[in-house]
Amino acid sequence: MKRRDLLKGGALAAATAGVSTLAAPAIAQDRVEIAMVSTWPRDFPGLGTGAQRFAQRISDISDGQLHVEYFAGGERVGPFDSFDEVASGNAQIYHAADYYWKGKHPAWAYFTGVPFGLTYTEANAWIRFGGGQELWDELAGEYGLKNLMCGNTGVQMGGWFRKEMESADDFKGLKMRIPGLGGDVLAKLGASPVSLPGSQIYENLISGAIDATEWVGPWNDAAMKFYEAAKFYYYPGMHEPSAVLAAGINKDFWEGLSNSHKTMIEAAAATENDMMMAEFNANNGASLTKLIDEQGVQLRQFNDDIYDAFGEAADEVFAETVAHSDLARRVHESFLRARTDIGGWQKIADQAYLSQRNRVIGI
Amino acid sequence: MKRRDLLKGGALAAATAGVSTLAAPAIAQDRVEIAMVSTWPRDFPGLGTGAQRFAQRISDISDGQLHVEYFAGGERVGPFDSFDEVASGNAQIYHAADYYWKGKHPAWAYFTGVPFGLTYTEANAWIRFGGGQELWDELAGEYGLKNLMCGNTGVQMGGWFRKEMESADDFKGLKMRIPGLGGDVLAKLGASPVSLPGSQIYENLISGAIDATEWVGPWNDAAMKFYEAAKFYYYPGMHEPSAVLAAGINKDFWEGLSNSHKTMIEAAAATENDMMMAEFNANNGASLTKLIDEQGVQLRQFNDDIYDAFGEAADEVFAETVAHSDLARRVHESFLRARTDIGGWQKIADQAYLSQRNRVIGI
Repeated sequence: MKRRDLLKGGALAAATAGVSTLAAPAIAQDRVEIAMVSTWPRDFPGLGTGAQRFAQRISDISDGQLHVEYFAGGERVGPFDSFDEVASGNAQIYHAADYYWKGKHPAWAYFTGVPFGLTYTEANAWIRFGGGQELWDELAGEYGLKNLMCGNTGVQMGGWFRKEMESADDFKGLKMRIPGLGGDVLAKLGASPVSLPGSQIYENLISGAIDATEWVGPWNDAAMKFYEAAKFYYYPGMHEPSAVLAAGINKDFWEGLSNSHKTMIEAAAATENDMMMAEFNANNGASLTKLIDEQGVQLRQFNDDIYDAFGEAADEVFAETVAHSDLARRVHESFLRARTDIGGWQKIADQAYLSQRNRVIGI
Repeated sequence: MKRRDLLKGGALAAATAGVSTLAAPAIAQDRVEIAMVSTWPRDFPGLGTGAQRFAQRISDISDGQLHVEYFAGGERVGPFDSFDEVASGNAQIYHAADYYWKGKHPAWAYFTGVPFGLTYTEANAWIRFGGGQELWDELAGEYGLKNLMCGNTGVQMGGWFRKEMESADDFKGLKMRIPGLGGDVLAKLGASPVSLPGSQIYENLISGAIDATEWVGPWNDAAMKFYEAAKFYYYPGMHEPSAVLAAGINKDFWEGLSNSHKTMIEAAAATENDMMMAEFNANNGASLTKLIDEQGVQLRQFNDDIYDAFGEAADEVFAETVAHSDLARRVHESFLRARTDIGGWQKIADQAYLSQRNRVIGI
């Protein structure tokens, strides 16, 4: 039996210890082997540790019946080969940001985050109760996948710059590491966006090969030491107002699972969706304070002129995305409805409350 | 064996069907019976349906090994007797808002929400990664409980008023249904806060026995028809910037569970924490639009003068809370650190982003 055949659809193997071979129910006797591949370096804070915690939780919740072997990026396949590894059935689950696959179909971008898109709590509402999951299922199904939300970084910072950014013109000719549709937006302003894996950003910024970069937020960015080459740290990022991380599951494997095993994986993913966001929020504030106090980082806010230009450019980018296909158009329209309805509510809920609370208590 | 003894610590009973009696592992043979009581009416949108979904998920995830029988408020004990029913071991889990127990200890209020407190995503960060859960464990442990986050309403509306509220003076003499520390804040402004269960608010508002009321947000409030008596609907509420709902678990029962059963309940609770907030956010916007368009509801925002007065009154209320006990003081100080650190981050993350996005796209 080829390794691929053995793993496809999830291998059922007799557990090796502790279970009677006499008349025990099948559920207790058999173990489901799951290979999980990810796009993150091992132990990478937030993203990597969150994916590892998700893998461990599946094993724990099932008392080892769902036995997960976790492979960080490069340990089994390269980070960006995770999609094909799972779609082919060679592995069972990936943990990634689905906008990495936007070259296959632009609609994938919406299930991570798009410019002027949804915050964490808005994205959760769209995916779970606003029609998002159904569209994600349709898209993923075309590739033999079933995908679930499994973590979030929250609102990302706008990036690290060597000089102050005072108008949209300052983006002309700027070489900036910024992937995805956010990079396409900056290109409309005359910038030259480049896509670099995390491991190569620092050297390119130090050498001057790029002028600026974005990454995630203070907790993750501090470890990258970008402040050594670029002191101006801008907020808020328009390009990823939240980044939904995904558990991408081989669809044949998923459909072969029992209802309780499906519920275990769904609950483990939803738990990580909650946990990872909480961990980023708990760490970003203290990390930002340290960057400012200990590294002389200059915190700056993009002004209205720049944000207006971002907004016009984003509309042009969306027009191109929508033209791709019927599915891309339907995903975009569903996203727009959610942004209006849920975003309209958030305006008088979280936005209005935070503005008043923070004004009154003076933070 | 008395019923109470049978249930205390969770009854292990042989499953009645479908399991071989020959040498089957104990884990497959025995079933854990869980009685879950709640403070919500059956099928009450969001709160009740969320609690019921949580109960069902525990059964599903365990393939019925953790067998939950759910009792809505009044079906087994009165809503506010849920705490004692579980603390005594007579039932195993309650679903409630823990600020209902602030008469037992004021620190309970912090684990639902307090005036000028934390939003949903801030509260999650504080509880999971900012020391909140450890303090909640200490408080709950004094009553024989282990509590987990299990749902959230998000930012609540400020309430329904018969007249426009133009200054803090307009609260003098106002009879308003508003429980918890939020009611204590309004009392400092000269209002007469009253606490009424949901089922009695409408009749008191219609009869004029009360002048105003708060409840939750547009989705829940629309069903209560408060607009028939009070047209002015104010935001944002200072009193519950999020309401964490709790799964309160009998501690002896909890400690007797296997690790996998604990992980199942933790994951089911975390899933509901994510789901319920998403459901509220997905429904509030459309409900608010209907209230305005179909019922003539007048949406109003509390002005800065009123919010400043709320802020001063809240400080007075907190000073009284902190004086209660060492534990109350430590919970308050941990909350304040979280509000400064995580709230400071949220100011440049969600708040800054939502302000710019909503300005640019015109919502």
